Amino acid sequence: MAARARAVAAPTVAPCPDAAAPGTEPTAGGPIVTVRPAAATGEFALIARHFVRPLAHTRLGIGDDAALLAPRAGHTLAVSTDLLVEGTHFLPGTDACRLGHKTLAVNLSDLAAMGATPRWAFLAVALPEADDAWLAAFADGFFALAAAHGVDLAGGDTTRGPRALCVTVAGEVPEAAALRRDGARAGDDVWLTGCTGEAAAGLAVLQGRATLDAADAAHCRARLEAPTPRVAAGLALRGIATAAIDVSDGLLADAGHIAVRSQVRIAIERARLPQSSALAGLDARMRADAVVAGGDDYELLLCAPRDARAAVDAAGTDGPRAELCDRDGRVLPVARTGFDHFAAGAA
Amino acid sequence: MAARARAVAAPTVAPCPDAAAPGTEPTAGGPIVTVRPAAATGEFALIARHFVRPLAHTRLGIGDDAALLAPRAGHTLAVSTDLLVEGTHFLPGTDACRLGHKTLAVNLSDLAAMGATPRWAFLAVALPEADDAWLAAFADGFFALAAAHGVDLAGGDTTRGPRALCVTVAGEVPEAAALRRDGARAGDDVWLTGCTGEAAAGLAVLQGRATLDAADAAHCRARLEAPTPRVAAGLALRGIATAAIDVSDGLLADAGHIAVRSQVRIAIERARLPQSSALAGLDARMRADAVVAGGDDYELLLCAPRDARAAVDAAGTDGPRAELCDRDGRVLPVARTGFDHFAAGAA
Repeated sequence: MAARARAVAAPTVAPCPDAAAPGTEPTAGGPIVTVRPAAATGEFALIARHFVRPLAHTRLGIGDDAALLAPRAGHTLAVSTDLLVEGTHFLPGTDACRLGHKTLAVNLSDLAAMGATPRWAFLAVALPEADDAWLAAFADGFFALAAAHGVDLAGGDTTRGPRALCVTVAGEVPEAAALRRDGARAGDDVWLTGCTGEAAAGLAVLQGRATLDAADAAHCRARLEAPTPRVAAGLALRGIATAAIDVSDGLLADAGHIAVRSQVRIAIERARLPQSSALAGLDARMRADAVVAGGDDYELLLCAPRDARAAVDAAGTDGPRAELCDRDGRVLPVARTGFDHFAAGAA
Repeated sequence: MAARARAVAAPTVAPCPDAAAPGTEPTAGGPIVTVRPAAATGEFALIARHFVRPLAHTRLGIGDDAALLAPRAGHTLAVSTDLLVEGTHFLPGTDACRLGHKTLAVNLSDLAAMGATPRWAFLAVALPEADDAWLAAFADGFFALAAAHGVDLAGGDTTRGPRALCVTVAGEVPEAAALRRDGARAGDDVWLTGCTGEAAAGLAVLQGRATLDAADAAHCRARLEAPTPRVAAGLALRGIATAAIDVSDGLLADAGHIAVRSQVRIAIERARLPQSSALAGLDARMRADAVVAGGDDYELLLCAPRDARAAVDAAGTDGPRAELCDRDGRVLPVARTGFDHFAAGAA
């Protein structure tokens, strides 16, 4: 219900010239500019139409200068940001619904790797033009995944520009239970929650660098365009895994991040890596590269003590695949371990 | 100190072909890929060099899948996201240091409008190429403002793409003390923390659409490129203001957002608006437009009861400038009230 405010000052001022632009009501003599509640237009209508949804656990959502939210007692907030740029992270013409899914999925994957429960997302969208159908499909993909994980879209921004999507997600995790990169210990097993290499194969097929039969190609393309964040595995691994990371840059690159943060060496035995039957049709060299350095996999790579093998198995990961070791000689620095946006030659 | 991990499995697998690319050590017979802690390169070196700074109040910062943070007891988290795109929000060639400042400032301004204490920022950067000098200057501007407000850069992302910057900020505010857009009441005064229109004038001068004398032009350009977020005013207005918003889209557009959320009409008397002497050299029509619809001002527009005038004055705002009223007739819908990225003709 609209409150009616009280006039407390004599109106004595002319409206700004532009306020009388064509299409507005003529001013009947009121030298005052009155701003009324009005239907949203343009950017704000787009936001209202596509991005304002019911909120489950947000104190204040879209429509103010900031959202208000609060982690539950005993929890810290895990927060991560990813920026996806057309031509860098996704191909022009990528299905908007899948892109909506992926935009959120890659961020939920970061929360999974922390063992955090996803709660809130913030979405900034740059688009070359206001494309209602594209936004509707994008929102469909985004919110389907958000609903599956109980995530509120609590805020965001829309603007004109080259197509890009920036999501910030926040989840809850008891601080001591968070899965970090710096906890790996000598003697830990290394695990993966599933196969790597399929997304890279999907990209190679889309770019005409490889061919697979139709079913394998479709599977790999779906893995590229609509990855599944391993949220349940991340939660189940709290208190079990000593370290975790999601495989986005590439298996070896991401293992390297754990190695750096935990100050350990990680030896990965190729024969123990899960092998996807969908990659059987690939050239052997391309397949090997895709598995260890393809990236965009969004599986969890984690370390856990050997005595936790049954517990890790119960958390749904795909077997111990490699193990930490201290090979003093024969150490092979890996040149290409995954995607680095600013590495020489990455353009 | 590096832990030395124990070998627990016989190495029996050949490294992936790409791991033996030129520039790596030849493998001396170890059929295993070992990932070692190594100096960061490319994207990760850029992050380490420019964006990893000491943290004052973050449990876990840059270098993991997500940051860990916790608001103080009794506080909710206020979170806001802004995406700045080259060519839309800033001109190509904008000074990188000022852009670093502005990228954070526009987000701190949102927290100021909530009455929140800034604590954490997350920065996603897309750049056409890894430009070390540009990043260094950008970081200088960003961190100078961050330090002034005690803000930790807790996470982010860097990628290749058309130049764009997405910042998410989080601050703390007791939930009941938050300044929202929906609290304005009939009879409230409307206040501004300072002059509007200077940033728009600065843009007009840069684009050759207007001329000002050198000192005024420099002042307006600085207001455009390095705005001051009104954080202290926002904090001081807790418990005093009934509603607040930061003026980014334009004074009337942003007043309209309060009108919509509070379901009131807001009448703004032009003669009461703070007038910047730096705009004296502008054409009268352009000046009037800049003041009410220019945008990019990052002043706070707020509502407060009349009996709170002394308290608002003490909070440092610039006098009561307009007031809510209930003019039943003579209401002028405003056509252009500020910038809307997707309004017809906004391209």
